[in-house]
Parts: sequence; structure tokens; C-alpha cells
Amino acid sequence: MLTPSDKALVPFVSVDHMMQLIHHIGIEDALKGLADYIEADFRRWELFDKSPRVASHSPEGVIELMPTSDGEVYGFKYVNGHPKNTADGLQTVTAFGLLADVATGYPVLLSEMTMLTAMRTAATSALVARVLAPKGATTMAMIGNGAQSEFQSIAMKAIVGIDTVRLYDVDTKATAKCAANLANSGLTVVSCDSAQEAIEGAQILTTCTADKQYATILTDNMVGAGVHINAIGGDCPGKTELAPAILTRSDIFVEFPAQTRIEGEIQQLAPDHPVTEFWEVLSGAKPGRTSQSQITLFDSVGFATEDFSALRYVRDQIAGTDYFHPLDLLADPDDPRDLFGMLQRAKA
Amino acid sequence: MLTPSDKALVPFVSVDHMMQLIHHIGIEDALKGLADYIEADFRRWELFDKSPRVASHSPEGVIELMPTSDGEVYGFKYVNGHPKNTADGLQTVTAFGLLADVATGYPVLLSEMTMLTAMRTAATSALVARVLAPKGATTMAMIGNGAQSEFQSIAMKAIVGIDTVRLYDVDTKATAKCAANLANSGLTVVSCDSAQEAIEGAQILTTCTADKQYATILTDNMVGAGVHINAIGGDCPGKTELAPAILTRSDIFVEFPAQTRIEGEIQQLAPDHPVTEFWEVLSGAKPGRTSQSQITLFDSVGFATEDFSALRYVRDQIAGTDYFHPLDLLADPDDPRDLFGMLQRAKA
Repeated sequence: MLTPSDKALVPFVSVDHMMQLIHHIGIEDALKGLADYIEADFRRWELFDKSPRVASHSPEGVIELMPTSDGEVYGFKYVNGHPKNTADGLQTVTAFGLLADVATGYPVLLSEMTMLTAMRTAATSALVARVLAPKGATTMAMIGNGAQSEFQSIAMKAIVGIDTVRLYDVDTKATAKCAANLANSGLTVVSCDSAQEAIEGAQILTTCTADKQYATILTDNMVGAGVHINAIGGDCPGKTELAPAILTRSDIFVEFPAQTRIEGEIQQLAPDHPVTEFWEVLSGAKPGRTSQSQITLFDSVGFATEDFSALRYVRDQIAGTDYFHPLDLLADPDDPRDLFGMLQRAKA
Repeated sequence: MLTPSDKALVPFVSVDHMMQLIHHIGIEDALKGLADYIEADFRRWELFDKSPRVASHSPEGVIELMPTSDGEVYGFKYVNGHPKNTADGLQTVTAFGLLADVATGYPVLLSEMTMLTAMRTAATSALVARVLAPKGATTMAMIGNGAQSEFQSIAMKAIVGIDTVRLYDVDTKATAKCAANLANSGLTVVSCDSAQEAIEGAQILTTCTADKQYATILTDNMVGAGVHINAIGGDCPGKTELAPAILTRSDIFVEFPAQTRIEGEIQQLAPDHPVTEFWEVLSGAKPGRTSQSQITLFDSVGFATEDFSALRYVRDQIAGTDYFHPLDLLADPDDPRDLFGMLQRAKA
């Protein structure tokens, strides 16, 4: 075997390395670090090439490529969404991502993104809640206790400062799993028997359920004034979680309207229903929360820049560590015109 | 470290493994095998989801994602094009690709594609020449003696049956490199001092030069009757190699007209200039070569299905061999809803 040059080797972060890296940093610090990178990229929102995601639909699900670029670094994420996978013991969503140097086109990072997407989704939710939730929020209702629920809970603790989560899921086993996983998190965990019970006393209401169908996880009469709704689960056409009446009572904040109007809760509203882009709140161009009695709603679907931020964070964190493998991904002959010579010499 | 399950592990073919695999099969047999897979997929052309490639342009070059699917298998290629890279000792084009199972969204193969793209481009050219070139063609002019030139020459030998290549490049060092690499190929290699000299007696004229600018590698008076032109180098907006008058004298064959009209030689022609899709020749819907005096022109830009075919070939060839690494790319917890528990357990 010939030894590839440095340029031919792309750092690869496996699932195992990602988990080791997160523990090396600490889960809460990693969530905070991710939120900082995500915030930094929202603050330079206008720089980004915001291509639409490229979706390949099938009866069973969707496979998407989500590219973006800030002009210096290019990134994309591969992600699938297959709701029926769970029944077969597979993940509904798996993902990996890549960063490349715009100036040369050479990849500079390949990373698993199933774990990383869970982390960045939670970090984004908590970043937005830190900005929009009522001041002094201490309690979150976590409705839907699947794969995202613990990440959301810990991110809200680390970034917003909550001390209590109130859990509810139609499947009591999911709630038991979530409660067990959060046992040593420092959060007070309350398992509830209904969504109604879960939202009692909560200033932040997070919905993250999985069915690919129009569902009503929160009805209008359940939601009082002065809360922040963090709606995670409505993230593709036909999949929503909130009663339309809640939406019309709320001030709605989104990542990228062109995408959210197709995939988010607001697919239930008129296409010109007013929404605020979250980056405009950070930049000061638009107000965030203006009163304690207001209902703010983050209609989150996940956007390519958040993955880009997460990959940037990982790239910076692995520098100087052993939490990656150098991957022989790129052919790099001594003479770029002599690819065939490289092939011939490999025979020896 | 926890041991990932089989489902979490994606076979990865590195550059070194790709080269070993090619030698294990034999270069000529690998080119023939690739041509068979490419032909098979052209023959079921109408099955494919032919999404446009997703390009991210910068002043230095372009990064593209080229997805496609046959309904059962999904594939995409990452490829860059940075003409100035050569001056910095980097490849103009690097690439990697992925196949995934449409039913689950799980990746099933990750592979380098710099070497593989060189192989599939040559295999495609030779497949098309086998169908369209004058019967009994023995000689190819190879104008442009860069990274693709040896692959083209050997593919035309293996698949079309030529015995002679006549080389020309503005850079005599490139010609010397190509001639040296082909010394033991079984081809008679003639190094020429001009394009005019190179095409003397050739039935197949292959152009593959690299400049990103309108160039005229072949002028009208150089091209006589009864030849097949294999135009490889004109493959992006602003990059062409043939005088327009040659195009209007030729019967033009393309991969996917919507893409070729933007990227190929025919960007120089009216948008409704008649062209034949190559798959229609294979299916019998349209004629190929109808006389020995005709000029046939394959205006090749490379299409996503060819990469898909090449990845399918590699997936099938690595089965049962050691020419891949299992890559820990996908998080695969025992309970799909317990991603956080998987992360927690990794701490131990």
C-alpha cells in the first residue's frame, strides 16, 4: 500500500468517536458550544447560500441532501426520514455530513450526524428558548419522550437554566426510558399521565412526537398565556402537532420561511401568515418576546446552517485530539495529471 | 468502545482499496464490467429519478451533488471542479459517492470516486463508441493527454477493439507521461506534434482538454467524414472544445439533454438543435450510426446514472473480498428511541 499524502486524508468522526468527543467535552458544555456556533452562524445569516434541500421521496420515506456554504466553507448533510424504520429496529433518522474547502473543493471533515443532529437540534431549541421564553423559566413540559427528549431536556437546563421537566408520552415505556436516562441529570423529573398534566406550571412547552400525520398534541384550550412553545415534531409535509388556533394566537418564529411553510406547523396557515425569522431577532431587526403574557412559538424544522454550524464545531473540537480517523477518501497523485500512473504503481 | 451492530457499519472503499480492487479484477476487465453496468442502467433509463445536479459555485470552482435513484437504490456523488487546483499540486476533480437503500434510507456503500469516475468516464465513452463509431475502428486520436487520457485509451482497446492511439497535447510532457503509462498496454502509441497530425487515419477522435474557457481544439477543416468524435472536455458552462461548424455537420448524441445543453458542446447551438439521447439508441427507439460516412458526436458531460452504475458495480465486486473497511457511520442503538441511552453507555 502506498501512503496517501495529507491532502488525500479526510478526518472522519465515527459514531463512537462522536460519543467519546461529547463525553470528553461534557454533554452540557458540548450543547452550549454547539449553541454558540449555531448562534454565530444565525448572526451572519445573510452570508449563507441557502439552497433548498434536495429530496428523493419514496413510499417508505425520504432521503435528503442539505447543502449550504458561507463562501469559505461548504457543507452538506445526508439525512433520511423513514417513520416505519422503528418497527424494524432501525433509526427513523440517520445522518452524516461533510465540510469542504470552497477554494479547492477538497473535503476537510466527514462525520456521523445521527448523534450530532440530536445534539444540534436540542442546542437550537434551547438557543431560541433562551431568547424567546419568558424570563426566569424554570419548567419545561416535554411531550413526546422519544430519541430527542433527553437532549432537549438537558439543553434547556444547560442553556436556558430550567430545573424541572414534566414528561408525557402516549407510550408510558418511552416516558420511563426518558425519566431513567435523566435520573442523574440534575433535573427534577416529573412523569405525567396526560399532556394536560405535563404542561401545568410549565413556561416552555416542547412537542416532539413522531407520527407522519396531522396530529393535535396540543389543543387550543391547553395553552395559556405567557408560554414559549418549542414545536419540534412537525417537520415535514403532512406532519403537524399543534391545533391551528394555537398558531393564530402565537407570535411565530422560524428558521427559513420558504422551508417552514412547507414542512412546519405553519403549513396549516395561509402562505402569507406573518412570521419572524429568528436571525432577525438576533440581529435586532425584529422584536422577540415583547411581553410576559405573549405566546411565542418556535416552529422548528431544522435548517442546513445548523448542521453546518455543528460540523464547524466538531471540526474545531477534534483538532489535536484522537477522536477521528484519517480516511483515505481522495486520490492524490504526485502529479495531478498522472492518476493512471498512481493506479499502475499501486499494483506493485 | 461499544461494538456497533452490522446495520451501523457501512462498507467504505478507500482510494487504496479501489486501486487494489481494480488490479484484482484487471483494468480492462474492470472497464468492461463498468461498461456493462452503465449499459444496463441506460437500458432502464426511464426508471431513474433524474434530479438536476445541485451546484455550489464560487470564483475558484464548483462543488456539486449528483443524486439519482432507481426506486430501490439511491445514490449520489460529491464532486468538485477547480481548474486552478493543478497549479497547487491538487486534483482538478475529486469525488466520492454513496449508495443507500431506498426502503430504509440506510447507506450501504461509501466509496472514493476520483479513481472510479476516471474509470466510469472511460467506460461510458467506450460503450458509446462501440455503438456509434464506424465498424472496424482501429485508431483513436487522443487530444489532451491529462489524467483521463490513459483510461480512455485502454477502455477503447478493451471495449471497442482499437489497437492504436495517436497522442497530442499542447504540453509535450503530458504526451510523454501518457505514452510512458501506455507502454505495456498492448496499444501502438504514436506521439504527435499537432492535433492535425494526431487525427490522421483515426476513426475515433477523443478530445479531453482542461481549460475552463471556450477553446477550439478541433477546427472544422480538420474533421473529415466517417469519424466518431468523443468530446469529453467540454463539460461545464463556458468550456467547449469544438468549432460550432463541426457540431452542425454531426449527428449529436447526448446523455441527458437538459444537462448537456447547459454544460456540453451544444451550449454553442440553438436550444432546440436536434440531439439523440443515447439510451434511445440502445432501446432501438432512435437510429445510431446509419452510414460509414456520417460524423457521430458524443457530447459527453457525465451523468448521475453513470456514477450510480459504477457504485453498483463496486458494491457487487467487493462482496466477499477484503477491499473495504466497515465504517462506523450510523448510530444504531438497541432501542431506536434510546439514542441518549446509547450516548450515556458509551461513557463507561
